[in-house]
Amino acid sequence: MTSQASDAGINTDIEVSFRSDVTVELVKHSAADSDVVFAARVSTMGERSLADIEADASENAGLIKFLMRERHGSPFEHSVMTFYVQAPIFVWREHMRHRMTSYNEESGRYRVLDPIFYTPGADRNLVQVGKAGAYEFVPGTAEQYEVVQDAVREAAITAYAQYRRMLDAGVAREVARGVLPVSTYSSAYVTMNARAMMNFLSLRRKAPESAYPSYPQREIEMVAEKYEQAWSALMPITHAAFVAGGRVAP
Amino acid sequence: MTSQASDAGINTDIEVSFRSDVTVELVKHSAADSDVVFAARVSTMGERSLADIEADASENAGLIKFLMRERHGSPFEHSVMTFYVQAPIFVWREHMRHRMTSYNEESGRYRVLDPIFYTPGADRNLVQVGKAGAYEFVPGTAEQYEVVQDAVREAAITAYAQYRRMLDAGVAREVARGVLPVSTYSSAYVTMNARAMMNFLSLRRKAPESAYPSYPQREIEMVAEKYEQAWSALMPITHAAFVAGGRVAP
Amino acid sequence: MTSQASDAGINTDIEVSFRSDVTVELVKHSAADSDVVFAARVSTMGERSLADIEADASENAGLIKFLMRERHGSPFEHSVMTFYVQAPIFVWREHMRHRMTSYNEESGRYRVLDPIFYTPGADRNLVQVGKAGAYEFVPGTAEQYEVVQDAVREAAITAYAQYRRMLDAGVAREVARGVLPVSTYSSAYVTMNARAMMNFLSLRRKAPESAYPSYPQREIEMVAEKYEQAWSALMPITHAAFVAGGRVAP
Amino acid sequence: MTSQASDAGINTDIEVSFRSDVTVELVKHSAADSDVVFAARVSTMGERSLADIEADASENAGLIKFLMRERHGSPFEHSVMTFYVQAPIFVWREHMRHRMTSYNEESGRYRVLDPIFYTPGADRNLVQVGKAGAYEFVPGTAEQYEVVQDAVREAAITAYAQYRRMLDAGVAREVARGVLPVSTYSSAYVTMNARAMMNFLSLRRKAPESAYPSYPQREIEMVAEKYEQAWSALMPITHAAFVAGGRVAP
Repeated sequence: MTSQASDAGINTDIEVSFRSDVTVELVKHSAADSDVVFAARVSTMGERSLADIEADASENAGLIKFLMRERHGSPFEHSVMTFYVQAPIFVWREHMRHRMTSYNEESGRYRVLDPIFYTPGADRNLVQVGKAGAYEFVPGTAEQYEVVQDAVREAAITAYAQYRRMLDAGVAREVARGVLPVSTYSSAYVTMNARAMMNFLSLRRKAPESAYPSYPQREIEMVAEKYEQAWSALMPITHAAFVAGGRVAP
Repeated sequence: MTSQASDAGINTDIEVSFRSDVTVELVKHSAADSDVVFAARVSTMGERSLADIEADASENAGLIKFLMRERHGSPFEHSVMTFYVQAPIFVWREHMRHRMTSYNEESGRYRVLDPIFYTPGADRNLVQVGKAGAYEFVPGTAEQYEVVQDAVREAAITAYAQYRRMLDAGVAREVARGVLPVSTYSSAYVTMNARAMMNFLSLRRKAPESAYPSYPQREIEMVAEKYEQAWSALMPITHAAFVAGGRVAP
Repeated sequence: MTSQASDAGINTDIEVSFRSDVTVELVKHSAADSDVVFAARVSTMGERSLADIEADASENAGLIKFLMRERHGSPFEHSVMTFYVQAPIFVWREHMRHRMTSYNEESGRYRVLDPIFYTPGADRNLVQVGKAGAYEFVPGTAEQYEVVQDAVREAAITAYAQYRRMLDAGVAREVARGVLPVSTYSSAYVTMNARAMMNFLSLRRKAPESAYPSYPQREIEMVAEKYEQAWSALMPITHAAFVAGGRVAP
Repeated sequence: MTSQASDAGINTDIEVSFRSDVTVELVKHSAADSDVVFAARVSTMGERSLADIEADASENAGLIKFLMRERHGSPFEHSVMTFYVQAPIFVWREHMRHRMTSYNEESGRYRVLDPIFYTPGADRNLVQVGKAGAYEFVPGTAEQYEVVQDAVREAAITAYAQYRRMLDAGVAREVARGVLPVSTYSSAYVTMNARAMMNFLSLRRKAPESAYPSYPQREIEMVAEKYEQAWSALMPITHAAFVAGGRVAP
C-alpha cells in the first residue's frame, strides 16, 4: 500500500484495514419481559408481585402495552444488558451523548490504536438533498463513490503513517493520536437498561411507524439496528409494545 | 386491640402489626467481579478484553484495587442487582434521594396499604447527644423505651382506624392515605449497579474504616447492611477493595 | 383543641394548623428563551451563536417549535430555575421520583417539624370512579367531606401529640418523627432545567391538549400548575411551543 | 501552504490554522456561595432559610467547610454555570464522559467544520515515562518537537484537503467529516452545577493538594484550569473549601 504520502519519507507500507460495518455483541444481561411485570405489579400488589418473577410474561402483554401507552417508564429500568461494540469514533461521539448508559472504551492514552478505519459501503447514501431540518439522503454517483473511497483511504494512510512516525520517535500515545481521523474504529462495553434502550432506538433509528421520526446518521443507526435485534430477542413482548406504540420511549 | 381512640366511634379493632426490621431480598442480578475486569481491560486491550468475561477475577484483585484507589469508577457500572425491599416510608424518603438507582414502589393510590408499622427494636438507640453535625446516639432508659412503644402504637392505631374510616365512607385511597404515618411499611424493587451501591454504602453505613464517615439514620443503615451482605457475596473481591480503600465510592 | 386522644394523658392542646394549598416561590433563575436559541444555533453556526445570547428570541419562535417537534431536547437544558416549595410529604414522595432535579429538604432528623398538615380543600374531588388505569375523580358528598376533615384532624392531632410526648421525654427527633402522617408539610429547594420542567409537567399535569395524558394526584398537580406559571413567565416562547406540541417533553 | 499531498491532485492551498490553547468563556450563571448556605439551611431552619438568599456568605464559611468535609453534596447543586468552550475533539471525547452536565456542540452533520487544528505548544510534555498506572510526562527533545509539529501539520492538511475534495464533489458533510482528525477544534455550550464542577476538577486537574490524585491528559486539564478560574471567582468560599478539603468532590 503506497501513496503520494511516501514522498514525505513516512512509512506508508503499514497495513491498514477498512470496514463498512459495526460490531454489536451481547456479552451478558439480566433482561426479560417478566421484569416489567413484577416491577409494575408491586404498585398494586406489593409483596405478591414476587410471584411474577418466574411467571410467564405472555399473559401480561396487555399490562406491558398499557405501561407503554401511559408512559410509565420506570418498570422498564430493571432489565439490563451489556454489549461489546466496535464502531468508528464519530459514532461514539454521538453514542456518548446518551447519559443514562454506562461506558468503558478502549483508550488512545493507554494503547496503540489499531489501523482500522470506516469507509462507507456501497449501499451507503452519499448525497444529502433538501433543506436544514428536512434532509434526505440519496445514493451517490459511481464517481462520488470513487472519490469517497479514495479520499478516506488517502487520509487514513497518511494519518496512520504520521501516527506511527510519532510513536517511533518516542512521542507519547496520547499526543500522537491527535492525527487519527474520526473514522478510526474504537470499541467499548455499553450497559443500558430497557428504558434507555428505547430512548436510544427512538432517536437513533428511523422507522416508518415512528410517531416522532428521527433522522439519525446511518452509521449510528446500524448500531441501533443491532441493539434492537438483540433486545427484541430478550424482551419480545416489550419490543412489540414499543413498536406498536409508535416507538415512543416511555 | 383497643385504645382511647375508640371514643371517637372509629373501629380500633383492626389488626395492626409492628415490625422492627427491614426486608432485603436479592431477586436477580448480573454482577460478578469479572465484570470489573473486562470493563477495565478494554481500555488497554480492546477486543482481547472479551476473554476476561469468563475469566477468574481472583487473579485480578490488584487491578480492582488499583481502580478503586485511583477512583476509576466506570468499570463498576456494568454489574447490576435488583432487590425487593420492605422498609418504613421514612427510610424510602432517604433512599430515593439516590438518583442513580431505579425504583418501583407499591402505591397508596392504587392499593389499600397494609397496617404494618415500624417501631424501634429494643436495641435501637433512642437518645441523641452532642451538637449539630457531631451527634451520637445512645440507648434510652426503660421509661423512654416504653414511651416510644406506646406512642408509636397509639399513633398507628388511630391513623389506621381513620384511614379505614375514610375508605369505608367511599373516599379515594389517595386522599385517605394522608393520615398514615411515615412509619408505615412500603415495598419496592430497587435496581442499582455496583458503583451506585458503593455510593449508597459510603453514605448510609457508619463503619470504623471509613475515610469519610457518615452518620446515617439507623433504619436506612439496616437496609445498607443487608445490601452489603448480598453484594459482597456476588462481588467479594470488589467488596474487599472497597473496604480496604476506606469505603470511598470510586 | 381537644379530642378523644386526651384520654391517653397526652397533650392535645398543641396548636396544629391545616392547609389545603401549596407554596411555590421562584427564588432565582438563569432561564430565558434566548438560551434555547444560542444552544441550538451552535450546531449550525459554531462561534457565531454567541451573538444569540443577547438576541431577541421572539424572532426564533419557529426554531424553538422545530426543536420541540423533532424532540431535540438538549438545547432546553441550559435554562435553570430554583424554587422554594412547601408541600405535604406525600407530594414530596412523588416529586423526588424525578431524578434530573436537585433537592434540599428540611430534615426531621435535624429539626422539630412544625404542626402543619394538609387537609383536602372544599374543591378537592374525593371519590374515585372507574377501573384501574382509567380512574376519574368526582366530588364527594357533604358527609364524605365531613368524614375526611374530621379524620385528618383527629389523626394529625393524635400524631403530633405523640410526637411531642416523645420529644418531651428526651427521645431523638429522628425516632419521634415516625408517628407523623404523610400529610405533614415539608419544604425544599428544587432546582431544575427547562427540559426537566417539561418532563415534570407532562407527567404531573392533566391538560386537555396532552398527546400523552397523565393522571397525576391533584396535590402534585397543584405544584405543577405553580411551576408552569413561573416557568411560562420566564420562557413564554418555549412554553407556547410545549403546549402547542401536545405537552410532550422533548 | 503546500505539501507532498498535492501530488494526489487535491487542493492543499486551503488555509488551515493551528492552535495550542483552549477557549472557555462564562456566558451566564446563577451561582454564588450564598446558594450553598440557603440550600443547606433549609434542613435545619425550613422557611427561615429564605433569609439566606440575599445574605453574606462569608459569615458561613464554616458551614460550607463542614458540608464539604462531611460530603453533603446536594447543597452544591443549586449553583449553575454555562460556558462556551472551544477544544479539540479528543478533549470533547473525554469531557462528554461527564454525564451530570448538559451539552450542545457544533455539528459536523449540519455545518462545514472549520480548518482549525490542535498542535502541542512548546511547553507540552511529549514523552511518557514510567509504567501503566504511574505515568509521568516529561519534555521532548527539540527533534521530537519537530516531528510532532510536522506530523500534525501534514496530517491536518491532507485530511482537510480530502474533506474539501469530497464536499466539492457533492458528498454529504456527515460522510466527508470521517477523514478529519480528532485534533480538529469543535465548540459547545456546557452547563453544569457546582457539584458537577467539583467532580470534573477532581478528575481533570492534577494538583499537589489532591487527596485522590488524578492523571488527566494535559489538554483537558487546560479546560479544567479555565473552568476553575471562572468558578472560583463566582464562588470563592466554596472553592477555598474544596481546595482545603483535598479536592474531593462532595
